[in-house]
Amino acid sequence: MADHPRSPVDAAERETARLEAFSDGVFAIAITLLILELKVPPMDTADLRAALLARWPSYLAYLTSFGTVGVMWLNHHRIFSLIKRCDHTTLVLNLLLLLGVSVVPFPTALVAEHLGHPGERLAVTIYASVSVVIAVAFTALWRYVSSRRHAPPLMHVSADSRVVRTTNAQYRWGVPAYLVALAIAQWSPRASVILCLTMVLVFLFRAPVPDGDPAERLA
Amino acid sequence: MADHPRSPVDAAERETARLEAFSDGVFAIAITLLILELKVPPMDTADLRAALLARWPSYLAYLTSFGTVGVMWLNHHRIFSLIKRCDHTTLVLNLLLLLGVSVVPFPTALVAEHLGHPGERLAVTIYASVSVVIAVAFTALWRYVSSRRHAPPLMHVSADSRVVRTTNAQYRWGVPAYLVALAIAQWSPRASVILCLTMVLVFLFRAPVPDGDPAERLA
Amino acid sequence: MADHPRSPVDAAERETARLEAFSDGVFAIAITLLILELKVPPMDTADLRAALLARWPSYLAYLTSFGTVGVMWLNHHRIFSLIKRCDHTTLVLNLLLLLGVSVVPFPTALVAEHLGHPGERLAVTIYASVSVVIAVAFTALWRYVSSRRHAPPLMHVSADSRVVRTTNAQYRWGVPAYLVALAIAQWSPRASVILCLTMVLVFLFRAPVPDGDPAERLA
Amino acid sequence: MADHPRSPVDAAERETARLEAFSDGVFAIAITLLILELKVPPMDTADLRAALLARWPSYLAYLTSFGTVGVMWLNHHRIFSLIKRCDHTTLVLNLLLLLGVSVVPFPTALVAEHLGHPGERLAVTIYASVSVVIAVAFTALWRYVSSRRHAPPLMHVSADSRVVRTTNAQYRWGVPAYLVALAIAQWSPRASVILCLTMVLVFLFRAPVPDGDPAERLA
Repeated sequence: MADHPRSPVDAAERETARLEAFSDGVFAIAITLLILELKVPPMDTADLRAALLARWPSYLAYLTSFGTVGVMWLNHHRIFSLIKRCDHTTLVLNLLLLLGVSVVPFPTALVAEHLGHPGERLAVTIYASVSVVIAVAFTALWRYVSSRRHAPPLMHVSADSRVVRTTNAQYRWGVPAYLVALAIAQWSPRASVILCLTMVLVFLFRAPVPDGDPAERLA
Repeated sequence: MADHPRSPVDAAERETARLEAFSDGVFAIAITLLILELKVPPMDTADLRAALLARWPSYLAYLTSFGTVGVMWLNHHRIFSLIKRCDHTTLVLNLLLLLGVSVVPFPTALVAEHLGHPGERLAVTIYASVSVVIAVAFTALWRYVSSRRHAPPLMHVSADSRVVRTTNAQYRWGVPAYLVALAIAQWSPRASVILCLTMVLVFLFRAPVPDGDPAERLA
Repeated sequence: MADHPRSPVDAAERETARLEAFSDGVFAIAITLLILELKVPPMDTADLRAALLARWPSYLAYLTSFGTVGVMWLNHHRIFSLIKRCDHTTLVLNLLLLLGVSVVPFPTALVAEHLGHPGERLAVTIYASVSVVIAVAFTALWRYVSSRRHAPPLMHVSADSRVVRTTNAQYRWGVPAYLVALAIAQWSPRASVILCLTMVLVFLFRAPVPDGDPAERLA
Repeated sequence: MADHPRSPVDAAERETARLEAFSDGVFAIAITLLILELKVPPMDTADLRAALLARWPSYLAYLTSFGTVGVMWLNHHRIFSLIKRCDHTTLVLNLLLLLGVSVVPFPTALVAEHLGHPGERLAVTIYASVSVVIAVAFTALWRYVSSRRHAPPLMHVSADSRVVRTTNAQYRWGVPAYLVALAIAQWSPRASVILCLTMVLVFLFRAPVPDGDPAERLA
């Protein structure tokens, strides 16, 4: 970093760092804005306890969305710890992923408002559809950066390495799982939301790539 | 970075990095706040599907604004990957650009609320005017940092390099294109919004500077 | 940072830096969103002074929450200045802590709305409960990263070092203090809020780890 | 950055970098949240142009606050480009400054809502008072880090250097100028707001420390 002119490697690292910083900003804001959907009952509420308890769909939707965005950040963090340089396509795919992440507060508010009311099926269908789209964007970004067609490569590791194969194996289940949640929403919207929350917990407590010292993950 | 006292080059890099971090924060927040303009129909809505479909101008405005801010971030990212040091004028011009970016949620909300209603022409005129102002601020920042009058220079590359000439050629079209959108708004506000969205897609799928390894872009 | 392939130490540092950046984003947003709970009296308010003074619970809740999040940031900053690498459990515990931080604007709004009204006991009980949960998450994160079971270790310092012992001694009081605030809320909600604010001031003016040059803190 | 164990200088730089990142986040959010105070007239507004023009105090307050936060960021950026390490007092003073910055959207909304109405004097008095408090916090932070009592010093430059003397000379005017704005608010609230806006422009177009290559600013 102290050389001048800076070397190509430094420049690539710096560009990647900036993409990470911008993405972190979007993830951090999306995950924090969700709390604004939790509405406080007005001061003249006679029974505050009952009013708060009646808003259980808000809390369920909040936790599910917080977990979803959090798990996406964990995965984004993992993927980019393997990335060496970003080309224009990486930037565009990342922007599409961030579009999905930024949208999350809207379906969350929809579910919070309509779960337990006539519009709940449509609300959860939209929620699950957004989840499918995000999972597709995520998989596309991962497939693009990990594929072997690039010269020079975008990643530190080869496309055959154990970490890439493990990640491939795990990401294979993301899109189908959210498609199942989308299907279930047509019968039981509540079961669909609970499935989404369960998936978050599964992802949280199963590390998506081999854990341990990062050195093991570098070629 | 480990030397002490730190070298002038390090200090310049660190200042530039901090300007990027602050700008990334503003871009990330502006792009994420846009979702707050998408209002959720209340829980007693009889026909949620119809209520959601009736809000199509919100979704159109959201996508256009997300894309506009995203493309501006891509371009900011590209320009600053070429910048070596920031003087006071760079900071002020960047602040003016960020003023434009921060304002975007307001005309977006105006369009989302008034498209399809009597105020749509005025709403889209304001939207396109803000876009023109941002394009002017962007062009001014780029012209300032890439011009050859500075000693020592602000950029890693010379003002005659291929990347600067290519960028100059591409940025030439930004302001006129938004002026056309502004003119079209007087006849058809909807066509103007669609033109803005089209321009985002064009910018996304045409890399504004030669792609490839960053090393090629450094003198 | 200029070597290629990057060394394991660099990769670990970069991952930790990114966790810090994401956490900083969440802290910064949570602390800044709090101001949105301060509602401005409408322009036709006859006596603006009286209307503003009547909102004293909002200002008290705002200051307490700002201070609480600020002190948590200070402590997070201190802990991570000792951390060398993050494993998956660190990421998950940090995410749970950020969940607590992100939630803060909700109990703050509850207290701001209900202090001085019939629901004040419940509102302050929820506020103090969230504080207890955050203190537990914080202690769990600290205990995990500072415990000696890890190989290779997660911290720069050993689990027996003076700074770790001092921090252990000080963090011992966090959870009990908030439990006291929770108990007091059952008798006097106002006294409970004032206790929370006092604790913020105590934490601010007592450095939680030995001050001075960071070199002293490194093994 | 590649050495292990990391050197004390690296650790100090990293802590300072993190303080900057958190502060940048707060500045970026405060400056971007301001736009949420600009309310969009509802879609059934008969005369949108008149409704928008009637909100001129919102635009004036928005521009003044954006400029104020922007100028504070510029100054924060300058001060921290001179800072080598942060002690606990620096962190606390910086947190107090950020408290002031985070509060800005509230008095801005007060002025936007009440300028031109009976409460305008009180609204502008509060606005100017917050500005005085922020200027005091800023001056206190600067005096603390630039004073010569510290061993080891907090800054790269000596307390006698030209840049410190110039900055001292310029910061001397901040608090008195905002006190004048506070006094003027008692006679003419509008003149007070215009004075605040003028001060922003003066600060923007007069670099607060000698410009040029950062190397000149380092001892």
